Amino acid sequence: MSTVDDGASSPLPADAQALAQRVAAAMYARDHASQGLDIRIVEVRPGMAVLTMMVRTDMVNGHAISHGGFVFTLADSAFAYACNSYNINTVAAGCAIEFLAPSRAGDVLTATAREHTLSGRNGIYDVDVKNQNGDTIAVFRGKSTRIKGAVV
Amino acid sequence: MSTVDDGASSPLPADAQALAQRVAAAMYARDHASQGLDIRIVEVRPGMAVLTMMVRTDMVNGHAISHGGFVFTLADSAFAYACNSYNINTVAAGCAIEFLAPSRAGDVLTATAREHTLSGRNGIYDVDVKNQNGDTIAVFRGKSTRIKGAVV
Amino acid sequence: MSTVDDGASSPLPADAQALAQRVAAAMYARDHASQGLDIRIVEVRPGMAVLTMMVRTDMVNGHAISHGGFVFTLADSAFAYACNSYNINTVAAGCAIEFLAPSRAGDVLTATAREHTLSGRNGIYDVDVKNQNGDTIAVFRGKSTRIKGAVV
Amino acid sequence: MSTVDDGASSPLPADAQALAQRVAAAMYARDHASQGLDIRIVEVRPGMAVLTMMVRTDMVNGHAISHGGFVFTLADSAFAYACNSYNINTVAAGCAIEFLAPSRAGDVLTATAREHTLSGRNGIYDVDVKNQNGDTIAVFRGKSTRIKGAVV
Repeated sequence: MSTVDDGASSPLPADAQALAQRVAAAMYARDHASQGLDIRIVEVRPGMAVLTMMVRTDMVNGHAISHGGFVFTLADSAFAYACNSYNINTVAAGCAIEFLAPSRAGDVLTATAREHTLSGRNGIYDVDVKNQNGDTIAVFRGKSTRIKGAVV
Repeated sequence: MSTVDDGASSPLPADAQALAQRVAAAMYARDHASQGLDIRIVEVRPGMAVLTMMVRTDMVNGHAISHGGFVFTLADSAFAYACNSYNINTVAAGCAIEFLAPSRAGDVLTATAREHTLSGRNGIYDVDVKNQNGDTIAVFRGKSTRIKGAVV
Repeated sequence: MSTVDDGASSPLPADAQALAQRVAAAMYARDHASQGLDIRIVEVRPGMAVLTMMVRTDMVNGHAISHGGFVFTLADSAFAYACNSYNINTVAAGCAIEFLAPSRAGDVLTATAREHTLSGRNGIYDVDVKNQNGDTIAVFRGKSTRIKGAVV
Repeated sequence: MSTVDDGASSPLPADAQALAQRVAAAMYARDHASQGLDIRIVEVRPGMAVLTMMVRTDMVNGHAISHGGFVFTLADSAFAYACNSYNINTVAAGCAIEFLAPSRAGDVLTATAREHTLSGRNGIYDVDVKNQNGDTIAVFRGKSTRIKGAVV
């Protein structure tokens, strides 16, 4: 179902992996938002991306837990790197997130984005956000739309 | 349908408005996330909140438009101030956002959160995010759950 | 915010109401799904529709409450009549529903669909489903996309 | 991530599969909704279910394609059989569906529901709906809540 899981049989060009990495590097260089949050790209593949972020004290809300906005932002960044990995400019049309457990300052969150379906211009990507203990903090689903132009 | 729109007939205590404002002030004092993004509270009422944020250059993504995460964060903050306005600790269970138009550095976004339904511990809040021209940038719906404790 | 609420200032043609009613009648004549569920159209206006359905014994699931699918179907039908009311063929791109209270056989449900935003080809519609006592059973949000062709 | 995918390491009792099948049989016997739509259970396992439905002429809407409500109902039923498979009464709190391609009368749809996460009383289930050609018609995500009582 996912181009990530059955990559072996996928009609991706031989350099799809190299392209995905070049796209991610170019996006990150101008992605002031992810940089400012110290979000790091751990891995990127065609249709897939893994990013991490440490929850900083300026990401904590009035309940002393991570502001959901930053958990969302990490997931949304992972989604963006995954859906742009084919070097076709792609934006988010909509996203839904479910918060399953709180996270706190000092926690290291890892967001893994995987392509669920891609048909024509529209894609569905699933992102799981886990903490350093492997607990699922949030699950995210994003809908992407391809627009004009290439990333690099 | 909304407790905001028909406040006149609402069984809120006489000091509900004063309480909503005290809660918001207390939340904001410890809300490092919203402070760090220069999010400002324009108005808060029982079940309702209006917040603004100027899109900074460090909120822009690799496509030169606002990272959806910051638009979400603004909406999520407005949701939080609205659903905590009764002084009962309330957290987000899940949220969905639809991105309708892009925003760019320098734009001033206003998020208006309104209570849609509140039954028992569970609430539904709708947030619209508009830019300085009144264009709708995003629509957001949040599901809230009341937990133990009071905000102030 | 809604074209329904501020219809006075809307640039709708003078016969927009008559058109909405003609569209609804034409849609219903070929809407075997809504007919088969005994869904009835109570009201239709440009961007708005009110439909009712009695919960039948064949709409009840293994927990002795209404199968969520039928509550969804009623809401989705109301959404369809609202978003097609301008006589431009419009389909659902996606929907989200929150189930707030159960309903049972014999309950009469009313779904009220209202246009939230409509920009270009894309619309957001909110539908509330209430029972005969005015209790909110479910809240629904649908995203519509205009396609080619007219309804009538 | 899913109890389905790594069932080997799961702490499920030895008779979890037999229990899942007994639960499904008991639910189906009183599930007038699924019966009335000729929905059939193809497979059920702990946290997982596969159901099929042929699109009948009475499931077609005013655009001559399947009413989204019936596609949703099939997905929602698969979700219900998956999340109740542990014999703990479980209901839907909310669902989101994205419609990716139309289906028509005569198409045979298969909904495969898989548990994504289950923590405490709350679960997330993903359902894919495909047609007889393997095209993805819709993707669905459901949030479940465990309530009191057992199914059988």
